[in-house]
Amino acid sequence: MTTTIKAAHYRGNKTFTVETMEAPAPAKGEVAVRIAFCGICGTDMHVFHGNMDGRVGFERVIGHEMSGTVASVGEGVTNVSVGEKVVVRPLDHCGNCPACDAGHQHICHNLKFLGLDTNGAMQEIWNVPAHTLHVLPNDMRMDHAALIEPVAVACHDIRLSGLKPGEDVLVIGGGPIGILCAMVARDAGGNVVISEVNTYRLAIAQAMGFDTINPVEADLPNTINERTSGKGADVVFEVSGTQPGVDAMTACAATRARIVMVAIHAQKPQIDLFQFFWRELKLIGARVYEPEDYEKAIQLVVSGAIDSERVITDVSPLEDIQQAFESLDNSPTAMKSLIKVGEDA
Amino acid sequence: MTTTIKAAHYRGNKTFTVETMEAPAPAKGEVAVRIAFCGICGTDMHVFHGNMDGRVGFERVIGHEMSGTVASVGEGVTNVSVGEKVVVRPLDHCGNCPACDAGHQHICHNLKFLGLDTNGAMQEIWNVPAHTLHVLPNDMRMDHAALIEPVAVACHDIRLSGLKPGEDVLVIGGGPIGILCAMVARDAGGNVVISEVNTYRLAIAQAMGFDTINPVEADLPNTINERTSGKGADVVFEVSGTQPGVDAMTACAATRARIVMVAIHAQKPQIDLFQFFWRELKLIGARVYEPEDYEKAIQLVVSGAIDSERVITDVSPLEDIQQAFESLDNSPTAMKSLIKVGEDA
Ligand SMILES: [Zn+2]
Ligand SMILES: [Zn+2]
Ligand SMILES: [Zn+2]
Ligand SMILES: [Zn+2]
Repeated sequence: MTTTIKAAHYRGNKTFTVETMEAPAPAKGEVAVRIAFCGICGTDMHVFHGNMDGRVGFERVIGHEMSGTVASVGEGVTNVSVGEKVVVRPLDHCGNCPACDAGHQHICHNLKFLGLDTNGAMQEIWNVPAHTLHVLPNDMRMDHAALIEPVAVACHDIRLSGLKPGEDVLVIGGGPIGILCAMVARDAGGNVVISEVNTYRLAIAQAMGFDTINPVEADLPNTINERTSGKGADVVFEVSGTQPGVDAMTACAATRARIVMVAIHAQKPQIDLFQFFWRELKLIGARVYEPEDYEKAIQLVVSGAIDSERVITDVSPLEDIQQAFESLDNSPTAMKSLIKVGEDA
Repeated sequence: MTTTIKAAHYRGNKTFTVETMEAPAPAKGEVAVRIAFCGICGTDMHVFHGNMDGRVGFERVIGHEMSGTVASVGEGVTNVSVGEKVVVRPLDHCGNCPACDAGHQHICHNLKFLGLDTNGAMQEIWNVPAHTLHVLPNDMRMDHAALIEPVAVACHDIRLSGLKPGEDVLVIGGGPIGILCAMVARDAGGNVVISEVNTYRLAIAQAMGFDTINPVEADLPNTINERTSGKGADVVFEVSGTQPGVDAMTACAATRARIVMVAIHAQKPQIDLFQFFWRELKLIGARVYEPEDYEKAIQLVVSGAIDSERVITDVSPLEDIQQAFESLDNSPTAMKSLIKVGEDA
């Protein structure tokens, strides 16, 4: 028996095509997941812009911020059952490198990121290794569940920061990732303030109940010092990916503050190492997530600590994926845009 | 009763004068220490070069890497007795700032560094706050004891790195501080290799039993990868204070490596933040020491883990302080130069 499905392929040149194809049966150790929703990640936008053509090619089905249900299981799969709601932790490790040996499989030296290095979730049925699945509560909303992957990124960032209740937190950059970091940090008991220059994003952050600072209008280090009686921020998340953000992360940091590098800096910015010495600061690199971050993210989406209704700003059917990417590209107000992949999702 | 002592004053323009003066009696809470030896720190060389004239002025007795005995105690002092051998941890904190409040007195926002912000140990009797003293074993060699302060810096660096036995350690820079870091890391069970470009220093490091790499002759990251089967260094100490050192610290780091910033970078170097993300690296700023680092340093100098005989390359009487600074300035082979302050030390 074969199943005909719809799948969106990235064809290069800012173009997706939606075509029907036969879904392969899940191989040994694999699970076929019927996709409900799939969010558009910043990485997916990079693919759309042609920045990752060498890595993904022109036949790739991308997408990894998904929710779905188990459609069928391959030989030897025992951790999930048909019909269960699931999300995929889209990391496949080699099991045989220094990182894997040290127990850091999520940053395996030969890591395959599913939905970039393999086909992904912008198709009705997605076959994935069984070990990548996390089971969701039965009554979970599947649109909200598509936020679990980016929330897990934020959970990883906050966990590595060692944030303790009552600590002062500065999030530099109020885009989708910054907002999710702020929500997870707030849930962990942090006194959170978001620095952002875009007035639309400032308004969104304020509507979500966050204190905000526009560093174009107010001196950021002074404002942080005023808020903290001269102490500075105990935990800083650098999400802006800019040199001013990197300057601010050291200028606003309290003695022994932890600075988590959330943004991906392709350039090598200049860093105030003297301040690292002077205040014994710590810079912590953080990449993707580990299983416990996924479990935490599921909890936070279920509990409402993540304001999913405000974070999800657009939902489009799979047929309209081209337009969804184009309009996300031009929107100053969009936070998270979802593709509704399943007809009955 | 007054005591006449000799003291070396920094007079600006690369000049010290040695004069006799009356030693003041120790005030309440102070201890008068009869100085035996005092090492010349890199910071003292900065003073000599005129780089710190604004901070120290032209009447300052500098020096803080000292050993001595308690000569007399002021009112209310109970933690030491006359005749005990001691070293001074030359930090005086305010007790009333965010760093002090958080228990990080050693990096107090209003820290006074004794021997720079106050008079120091290049005089026969030095009055210091009693809380800065650590008592030494009775039979300790006083020349060796003058190494305790710089060794405590290294102990602080190694402690903050969280080094575990068997881990691979790279020390970038083989000057006096790098060598002490290497010795403390070796004592903690690290597999230490030192990177250094100066051939004199390479020879010294080898004579002390260390593996060395000259990055001018061999590709440093490749060499580290070969030594560690592709893993990289688990702990990196950046002691060079150079851009190539900063480049090497990320290029040689294993997944989840800890990089301790020992050097003081007055400039803002460019840093490969992508590598921090990619391998989840940690950068740790470290400044001076805490009391437990002093206790550890005393142990290591007593035990011989610090090869004091090789580290101390020169000893000069106080009268010759001018020449001692001048020759240290021009020496390619000097490690630690001591001033013998006490006649009977
Ligand atoms: Zn993503
Ligand atoms: Zn691996
Ligand atoms: Zn020193
Ligand atoms: Zn203080």
